Amino acid sequence: MKESRSWNLLGEMIYGGDYNPDHWPEEIWIEDVQLMKEAGVNLVSLGIFSWAKLNPAPGVFSFEWFDRVMELLHEGGIKVNLATATASPPAWLWKLHPEIGAIDADGTPFSHGGRQCYTPNSKAFIRYALELTQAIADRYQDHPALVMWHVNNELHGNGPESYGELDAIAFREWLQARYGSIEALNEAWGTTFWSQIYSEWDEIPPPRKLTTGANPSMVLDYKRFFSDAYIDFYRKEAEILRKATPEIPVCTNLMQLYPKIDQFKIIEDCDLAAYDCYPNPIEAPGDFLAISADLTRSLTPDAPWLLMEQVTSQVNWQPPNTIKAPGVMRLWSLSHMARGSDGVMFFQWRQGRFGSEKFHGAMVPNAGPDSRVFREVCELGADLKKLKPVVGSTLQAEIGIFWNWENLWALETSDKAQVFNHTEQIQRLHEACRDLGLYTNFVHPDNPDLSRYRYLILPCTYLLTEAQSKALRDYVEQGGEILVTYYSALVDENEQLYYGKAPLHLRELLGCWVEESDGVESNDHNALCFEDGTEVPCGFICETVKPEAAETLASYRSNWYQGEAVLTRNRFGKGQASYLGSRPAERKGWADVLQRVFDLEGCGHGFAVQPDLDILTRHGAGGERYTFFLNYASENRSVDLGAHEGQDLLTGKALRGELLLEPNDVVVLAELA
Amino acid sequence: MKESRSWNLLGEMIYGGDYNPDHWPEEIWIEDVQLMKEAGVNLVSLGIFSWAKLNPAPGVFSFEWFDRVMELLHEGGIKVNLATATASPPAWLWKLHPEIGAIDADGTPFSHGGRQCYTPNSKAFIRYALELTQAIADRYQDHPALVMWHVNNELHGNGPESYGELDAIAFREWLQARYGSIEALNEAWGTTFWSQIYSEWDEIPPPRKLTTGANPSMVLDYKRFFSDAYIDFYRKEAEILRKATPEIPVCTNLMQLYPKIDQFKIIEDCDLAAYDCYPNPIEAPGDFLAISADLTRSLTPDAPWLLMEQVTSQVNWQPPNTIKAPGVMRLWSLSHMARGSDGVMFFQWRQGRFGSEKFHGAMVPNAGPDSRVFREVCELGADLKKLKPVVGSTLQAEIGIFWNWENLWALETSDKAQVFNHTEQIQRLHEACRDLGLYTNFVHPDNPDLSRYRYLILPCTYLLTEAQSKALRDYVEQGGEILVTYYSALVDENEQLYYGKAPLHLRELLGCWVEESDGVESNDHNALCFEDGTEVPCGFICETVKPEAAETLASYRSNWYQGEAVLTRNRFGKGQASYLGSRPAERKGWADVLQRVFDLEGCGHGFAVQPDLDILTRHGAGGERYTFFLNYASENRSVDLGAHEGQDLLTGKALRGELLLEPNDVVVLAELA
Amino acid sequence: MKESRSWNLLGEMIYGGDYNPDHWPEEIWIEDVQLMKEAGVNLVSLGIFSWAKLNPAPGVFSFEWFDRVMELLHEGGIKVNLATATASPPAWLWKLHPEIGAIDADGTPFSHGGRQCYTPNSKAFIRYALELTQAIADRYQDHPALVMWHVNNELHGNGPESYGELDAIAFREWLQARYGSIEALNEAWGTTFWSQIYSEWDEIPPPRKLTTGANPSMVLDYKRFFSDAYIDFYRKEAEILRKATPEIPVCTNLMQLYPKIDQFKIIEDCDLAAYDCYPNPIEAPGDFLAISADLTRSLTPDAPWLLMEQVTSQVNWQPPNTIKAPGVMRLWSLSHMARGSDGVMFFQWRQGRFGSEKFHGAMVPNAGPDSRVFREVCELGADLKKLKPVVGSTLQAEIGIFWNWENLWALETSDKAQVFNHTEQIQRLHEACRDLGLYTNFVHPDNPDLSRYRYLILPCTYLLTEAQSKALRDYVEQGGEILVTYYSALVDENEQLYYGKAPLHLRELLGCWVEESDGVESNDHNALCFEDGTEVPCGFICETVKPEAAETLASYRSNWYQGEAVLTRNRFGKGQASYLGSRPAERKGWADVLQRVFDLEGCGHGFAVQPDLDILTRHGAGGERYTFFLNYASENRSVDLGAHEGQDLLTGKALRGELLLEPNDVVVLAELA
Repeated sequence: MKESRSWNLLGEMIYGGDYNPDHWPEEIWIEDVQLMKEAGVNLVSLGIFSWAKLNPAPGVFSFEWFDRVMELLHEGGIKVNLATATASPPAWLWKLHPEIGAIDADGTPFSHGGRQCYTPNSKAFIRYALELTQAIADRYQDHPALVMWHVNNELHGNGPESYGELDAIAFREWLQARYGSIEALNEAWGTTFWSQIYSEWDEIPPPRKLTTGANPSMVLDYKRFFSDAYIDFYRKEAEILRKATPEIPVCTNLMQLYPKIDQFKIIEDCDLAAYDCYPNPIEAPGDFLAISADLTRSLTPDAPWLLMEQVTSQVNWQPPNTIKAPGVMRLWSLSHMARGSDGVMFFQWRQGRFGSEKFHGAMVPNAGPDSRVFREVCELGADLKKLKPVVGSTLQAEIGIFWNWENLWALETSDKAQVFNHTEQIQRLHEACRDLGLYTNFVHPDNPDLSRYRYLILPCTYLLTEAQSKALRDYVEQGGEILVTYYSALVDENEQLYYGKAPLHLRELLGCWVEESDGVESNDHNALCFEDGTEVPCGFICETVKPEAAETLASYRSNWYQGEAVLTRNRFGKGQASYLGSRPAERKGWADVLQRVFDLEGCGHGFAVQPDLDILTRHGAGGERYTFFLNYASENRSVDLGAHEGQDLLTGKALRGELLLEPNDVVVLAELA
Repeated sequence: MKESRSWNLLGEMIYGGDYNPDHWPEEIWIEDVQLMKEAGVNLVSLGIFSWAKLNPAPGVFSFEWFDRVMELLHEGGIKVNLATATASPPAWLWKLHPEIGAIDADGTPFSHGGRQCYTPNSKAFIRYALELTQAIADRYQDHPALVMWHVNNELHGNGPESYGELDAIAFREWLQARYGSIEALNEAWGTTFWSQIYSEWDEIPPPRKLTTGANPSMVLDYKRFFSDAYIDFYRKEAEILRKATPEIPVCTNLMQLYPKIDQFKIIEDCDLAAYDCYPNPIEAPGDFLAISADLTRSLTPDAPWLLMEQVTSQVNWQPPNTIKAPGVMRLWSLSHMARGSDGVMFFQWRQGRFGSEKFHGAMVPNAGPDSRVFREVCELGADLKKLKPVVGSTLQAEIGIFWNWENLWALETSDKAQVFNHTEQIQRLHEACRDLGLYTNFVHPDNPDLSRYRYLILPCTYLLTEAQSKALRDYVEQGGEILVTYYSALVDENEQLYYGKAPLHLRELLGCWVEESDGVESNDHNALCFEDGTEVPCGFICETVKPEAAETLASYRSNWYQGEAVLTRNRFGKGQASYLGSRPAERKGWADVLQRVFDLEGCGHGFAVQPDLDILTRHGAGGERYTFFLNYASENRSVDLGAHEGQDLLTGKALRGELLLEPNDVVVLAELA
Repeated sequence: MKESRSWNLLGEMIYGGDYNPDHWPEEIWIEDVQLMKEAGVNLVSLGIFSWAKLNPAPGVFSFEWFDRVMELLHEGGIKVNLATATASPPAWLWKLHPEIGAIDADGTPFSHGGRQCYTPNSKAFIRYALELTQAIADRYQDHPALVMWHVNNELHGNGPESYGELDAIAFREWLQARYGSIEALNEAWGTTFWSQIYSEWDEIPPPRKLTTGANPSMVLDYKRFFSDAYIDFYRKEAEILRKATPEIPVCTNLMQLYPKIDQFKIIEDCDLAAYDCYPNPIEAPGDFLAISADLTRSLTPDAPWLLMEQVTSQVNWQPPNTIKAPGVMRLWSLSHMARGSDGVMFFQWRQGRFGSEKFHGAMVPNAGPDSRVFREVCELGADLKKLKPVVGSTLQAEIGIFWNWENLWALETSDKAQVFNHTEQIQRLHEACRDLGLYTNFVHPDNPDLSRYRYLILPCTYLLTEAQSKALRDYVEQGGEILVTYYSALVDENEQLYYGKAPLHLRELLGCWVEESDGVESNDHNALCFEDGTEVPCGFICETVKPEAAETLASYRSNWYQGEAVLTRNRFGKGQASYLGSRPAERKGWADVLQRVFDLEGCGHGFAVQPDLDILTRHGAGGERYTFFLNYASENRSVDLGAHEGQDLLTGKALRGELLLEPNDVVVLAELA
């Protein structure tokens, strides 16, 4: 599979969206293909919610209308990303097998009609879903329009964790596979606490409604189990597709920063990374686009990836639903390409007339093609044609930031000194990297190739196994440099505290230990004081750090631990390891810390950094450089290109010296090798 | 029924309240009648929650105590508005038929003990309720004290929508009656969306708990269905009563601005409009009293109506429960009469000693008749005697504002550019009309007599059928003038978007179309700029309006659509049609828009308008004018009566020239024809 | 039992904490005993959550490991407060008897894994719990380390009110015992309201989910019933223990200001008052420590009591979980002793490694004994040794404040003029007493010995029986003085309003009545105006007070009742009775009222009062005085000792004249008789 990751579906940038012809009469289909061609569309995702229409009764399939759609698309030169159509089960299946419905932690069943209302732990559901997948694969495996498979849709997105009897049974099977014996489970979960000891597997419930917090080790395992249940469902569909068409890439649309699926795990079975991206336009979207694209790129860091869904104008579920101003759709689309996407797709092609998403934006709005949105869609399609040379090139990062879904689950689960939102701990840090023009990948702690990164950052890496600690030690010993932040390396894979001075297995590496972690009310409750007098406001959590071999870089400004260490650095082997015991209140503060801890000379894009101006370079296999300049600011930005010169792929103009960008402007400087 | 609407029960203003003698021993009944006479009470609502006491076991009735109460009242000259007593089922019925209880969307059953805990879709509940209604009708149909029937109580008020199996069965029957075939239902609901297609009726659930939003067409139908279920229950009781006493008016107490019952539908079976009004005294009550009274009047615009419940001093469910200061009860009571009520009634006659409403105010408080409240009650009773000439007169409005419960349900249901509260969209507009001294009725879009109004306003009339659009076109063609506001005429009766440029069926009439609807965060995000330089702050939603035949009256001040049209006017036939694409931030802004769009010369009360001073004229059949002056301000108000002169009915004083009103003062100027 | 209340377990101050050896291997046990000795620990609470480990299967007990722990402790000279271990049922019992789980008001069952997830109305649960209690009693009744029994743990703390069928059955039995006949119940509950009349006991449900508020008399009885159910469970365990060891004191750990258990009732079966205290360090802890300790002392006002749990540094459930700064643990610990505790215990001895409390602070933190926390623990242990002379002495109060759980339940239940939080009504008042240096006990209205108090205060004593009113009248007649505040004496034991001018049964005593109670939005909406021109801001509720025999001390500043009485005083018999009809906005205002109403000369500690400085004197049987000076302020405080002199027990220094205290300082001045 690794092999197939250097995918290149069409030899050009992908452009298109979800297509739901089942909502429309056939005369609209014909108009659709015509408009697609006008807009430059070359790929559509087809059939995602068509289960009921393709499979109207048990064992009955109705493909004729779908054949016609495939045919029309093929005739129009539009390729198909064909869905397995299993995202929402039909009413007849619900009636036949009411037990397929998910059940919440209170025991309330979810009803039919929402999307993804099933539990993946229902064998009946899986059986019917695979039957449909097989039928679709059989029917279309040789269809010339087919170029990609789309498994299900936003797995576990609206599909909640379920707590019913089927889930309990599957959970116990999962636990038996993980622990082997009930004694091992009791040991791992620490069930002597609050008299939770289990004698038999069937005594173990899912973490349903309790009078108090549940056993946090159980909660962590339930998150693992549910992520695995969805990944397993994905794999079963993928297996059918791969058997039918070994050459056609299989993927699914992951979700931006989504907490419930271990994306580093599911990516093992995907031929490419693809994701859906829906920032709120009112919030600073540049930061959000950057971190969500970087996380997706990090899943297959040496290959391009695909933006599978975004919206043209406004969604319907972030009220107020603000419209993207003219030029914003283009800027955001190209920002994904700047970070490695080889295409831009939308939900959806044509705005619907009914159902709960009828006010969701589309490439063709309800007003029709005579509309601002469709005109911008056509312009963007034309832009993408010009970016064909960029296809296949990649963006390489020098800094790795640890990201681990197991850490996220553990960190957000049990009662700690603070209420942690895992992603929030990382966002400010990532924004600081963006401000400094640095390129960052997210890295799983088990990644065998840590040494590709010049620097590694462990933000709030609460769960860190002994083996992962060991690998870090090796990394530093060989010359790597790391920054570990507050509340890291406290628990093992079972969420049990390491017994002794924390962070136990990093203590020697860091040359310090942490005595106490004070949860504080405000984000700027205290400050890091550097020897040169600089103060960096910090708060949220304040740890009293006890240097042993490490030197103190900054100490607390106030509170009863005034003067105690908060930022330390330890030389170890050929590298060094720093520890930060509190959270800078502002992104500026994070940038200060990064600059003091690491030598950033030569890192990043190499141009002068400016606020709200992204500069990102993709490298081709032959040494070509494609540098994207994206102006998010509401005023003009001017860039001194220095020694760089070449052609703007979008306008064809030659570029050298001073480059001027108006708001929302994008320039793609091509420098050939 | 229309005929019986010119009701006149007593030949004088009605005065009284809910009476619960079952809470008290008989010696108190005797004192009650004595005090009622002292207070000028002439009508009480009797037996509303007496089911358990009148019908203590299946088939067993116990009327003796009730006979005695009826007799005492009759002897005291007090008339009776007799309840069917079905508002809360007794415990024995709950035990016998536990399935009568309502079930929430999560499947949780409501328990016995609250009021109206039943579902009207239980046939057992209906059977027992009708048995009681019949027994009461049989017993009292010829009683001389009986002058009015009170069906149930605040229908669907505390009775929630229910989602159990009985409701599912009744819903399916209702759907079959509406759609005829499952194919028609699938078409109407757009069930191809998210694989929701139904093959059989029994696959259709009520909109229970889902993982996502439900099908909005289904949600709209469920609102219709539940409103119908309650109206049907009302009709069944009313039918029994009408058969027993064809001459006695039948009604029920509707609720102020209540969203769950289609009041334009239920009023078809009521002999008069009656309602309960409980503003929060801390919020600006004048506005609330005005809109809630106007809506009730609009149900039978050519007849008087009745304020069936309000409180004397304080309620028990709006904590903090503020007391009405001296004079406020009188002001509010007379304000209802100014807007057409032919009486004033309270919940309740005597404050209770137990149960969850024991701290609800009453005409006789727990402290007894030696109290401020009872003294004011007696004074108000005396005032009402003096208003006898006003009985039967009506207030006529020149402006019609569209109000349609189906639109309310559709607007508040599905995912849109904004979160709409239907009533909130109308309240600021209605307040502006009040500020301008205009008289407004609320009008259902299907009203066959639109031409009685000089102007029509369509506030946020999201759901508008083709037929309704056609009627509007006819209205304007014949010389009518309309103002249509944002988010109007987008969907049909099934809540499906009209396909094409919006508002499709009003496009020609308005001479413009709306391209995009931007949901914005603040209410004063933008402004309407008029040619004369006036700026009217607006926000909430900003639509880009594309004039075709229409002229532009105002354009946007800012954002990327700066300079685009926001307010247009189109001459059409003999009339004109205006469109407003955003929401003024203040009532003052609404007044600006109304004055620019309509020629208001000669509209309204004709006196100089002043803040917090209501002036309202009721007209008698013989041309008499009764003009109410009500001072809500905390300072004195002075009115120049101009050519008007006559007598103040309340004081008997002759009025001419300058009229001075102290805070809370009310004057009723009678001008005979 | 009364006799055994002058308990003295160890002849010295108690010091220790909860000990959970089942979480650790045996080698840690040995280290534990060693460290306990180092810290001065003399008592541990053992086995609280060990049910599953002591009783691993039905009828099977496993005591060997526990014997070893007991033995090790005994060898180390550590005494044991032995738990009945019934706080959380094991998984096998849950599987065997799933009906033991509590059910919420919506019908949702609680699942296994949280603590105290059972309902005490399950006979199966009680049977197994008592079987375990008996087994423990049998095994350890003669063990030399045993000095105290610890029944269950924080009864009803996490154990919710349950609403299942077992609860319904038990509730009906409780009701039959209380009311005898269904007619008496209907009368007491006022079930004619909303048709709630019951014909048979089995028609009565628990107050499950309703469409409206439940019958408030039923709700009050359900609170009584559930408090009784837990107290009954406590009694059953205590009976077993008392039979086994008549000489060993039995108690349980009550909770600070806990609303669900009637502590005045359960204390009848406790040999001493013990409680758990967890203030939030971010909020003003001095006030909280004072009121919670005073309430616990008030349960057995003539005996010492015991602080059974607190935390050394930070808890894990108040995020952010702030750390106590150096010295704070000592200050808070000694503050409990100042108010009468004869010891200091912690949850817990050693920080856990797993489960949802692993981040809860402990005497030995995860970092081990080389830590700030353990060092402070050792210092405190040494301090306690020096306080041995204080053992057995008590603090005596001159002011009694009414506190009645039945009043709390009634006040917080039904719909009133305001939303009342019972404790909040008292806290500001208690703080004012603290500011004035007054000593206060909380007193149940049925207390037969009211005359021991110089003054009595009835804060918001909504429920007051006729007998309680009569006792107050006798108290004042004999020379007592009382202050009654707003919303008092309105209802009887069934929560039915007294019929007539309120407060009916105190009207003659107070010489005034209350006409109306205005719920107002702000806390400083109005003011008490005194004749000397002083204004004391007040609000929340404003009652119009009608003096009869009483004199008016203050009248309202504003609103329509400006000038009406708000504070009155009535001479009655040899005493006097004051009434306050509104709530002072600030503690300063409460102090003003107290000083005007009562002659406080000679009350309180007798030193000059200073902010955040507590001065509290315990008296020994032989006339010795132990005066604690505790400085909560962040600056130094200086006290003029006047005629007092003696020795500081903590430092051994002689004290006279000026006493200086740094922040967090504590001095214990011993004056021998």
